[in-house]
Amino acid sequence: MNRGFVSIVGAGPGDPELLTLRALRRLEQADLVLFDALVDPRTLRLAPRARRFFVGKRANRPSITQDTIHRLMIRAARKGDRVVRLKGGDPFVLGRGGEEAMALFLANVPFEIVPGLSSAVAVPALAGIPVTHRGTASAFLVVSGHAESAYGPLLSSLLPGAATLVVLMGVGERARISARLIARGWTPDTPAALLLAASTPRSWAWMGRLAELAGVEVPQGAADLPGTIVVGDVVGLAANGRIAAATPEIPAEMEVAG
Amino acid sequence: MNRGFVSIVGAGPGDPELLTLRALRRLEQADLVLFDALVDPRTLRLAPRARRFFVGKRANRPSITQDTIHRLMIRAARKGDRVVRLKGGDPFVLGRGGEEAMALFLANVPFEIVPGLSSAVAVPALAGIPVTHRGTASAFLVVSGHAESAYGPLLSSLLPGAATLVVLMGVGERARISARLIARGWTPDTPAALLLAASTPRSWAWMGRLAELAGVEVPQGAADLPGTIVVGDVVGLAANGRIAAATPEIPAEMEVAG
Repeated sequence: MNRGFVSIVGAGPGDPELLTLRALRRLEQADLVLFDALVDPRTLRLAPRARRFFVGKRANRPSITQDTIHRLMIRAARKGDRVVRLKGGDPFVLGRGGEEAMALFLANVPFEIVPGLSSAVAVPALAGIPVTHRGTASAFLVVSGHAESAYGPLLSSLLPGAATLVVLMGVGERARISARLIARGWTPDTPAALLLAASTPRSWAWMGRLAELAGVEVPQGAADLPGTIVVGDVVGLAANGRIAAATPEIPAEMEVAG
Repeated sequence: MNRGFVSIVGAGPGDPELLTLRALRRLEQADLVLFDALVDPRTLRLAPRARRFFVGKRANRPSITQDTIHRLMIRAARKGDRVVRLKGGDPFVLGRGGEEAMALFLANVPFEIVPGLSSAVAVPALAGIPVTHRGTASAFLVVSGHAESAYGPLLSSLLPGAATLVVLMGVGERARISARLIARGWTPDTPAALLLAASTPRSWAWMGRLAELAGVEVPQGAADLPGTIVVGDVVGLAANGRIAAATPEIPAEMEVAG
């Protein structure tokens, strides 16, 4: 009997302590791990038995095709491997997890989805920003900042300030996004945040006003870091120190080992 | 030295395997756990050292005030307790986590936020529904269905079909939500799902069309179950069997113990 099986696993924003227990269990039992650029090296060490292959895409560099990733998963599962397809954040939030699930389904390979902490919610939270807050925002919109043709019409339809706006993969589009929101009627003073590589050693954060977002200077090499933009009054709760440091003085023995 | 500390922890949708490693660690070390109605009993067993108090709110029943929850946390932390404030889903998604963080900050009690899997993303994922999917949806909007005065103007502004719509706490409002979307121009044939108590033994799911959402008959006693409504073409990927069973035949030894 073939025990081949694929788990499409969300690794969360980076810190291995933010993996789910199910994700850890699948990594420990894996024969093969296919991982993306956004997966933290510390996480890979949790799969000691597995062969580990980088199948990620990086800005402006040649990379493996989506179809090749599908074929690698299918071939390994048919050989009897327990495969973990490890993706940053949640596999179904702008992660092409749906395409990979469909490819496995059509190939008749058994699989499961293991949800992960999406950067859309967890990254703001780690910076002390609640995407919703009673009396401030009861809704949030998550958009890909990859292509203006996709986010443009949506942002132009949304009632200004009616929902917290979270943009993933939009750091390079920050000037266009800011201009579009202000043109739509958002107050230029609306609090805004730009958060890079949250929960990793390269973590970097800016908080200010929507009108300033266009001019934010990000660190060198930031193009390869995962970035999250948040726009809305909820950002002010963290920026003004009302929620403030969400992870302040944690007693040393409560920190993650290694 | 007072080691009193509060961790505001998201427990995810229910199944303890969907906790993060950090959440598990905090539960294991806790002296006091204050938990909500949506927290699974199996999760509480992971805090064997702790005193455990139910501080949840339930529909149509008297319940503890938010201010009392704040005072319980602050008093215990000042006495030196390690407190876990355990909330269903993510603490910052419609969970009043921001208010609790502010109360702790103002009381000068050290605290942290431990993000959890939000039902907004994880519940659809567990049903095989990707909230985004290349060529189908590159954005999703999460709204509270609690009060029409909040979601109404927002849904009436959103370009029909431009984002996957996820409604939390809106099962009782399903007829009004469906009518409002159709009036705004959403196609009545748009795929829709209503998911209750995902990842728990009481899990229940319906998938169909937006026009049918108003008439869905939910099981008796569903008023106390957490419900997620999803509207958008991405629901069709699961409903038509293209992604289908996202958690199919998991080998027995891969299942969670107990």
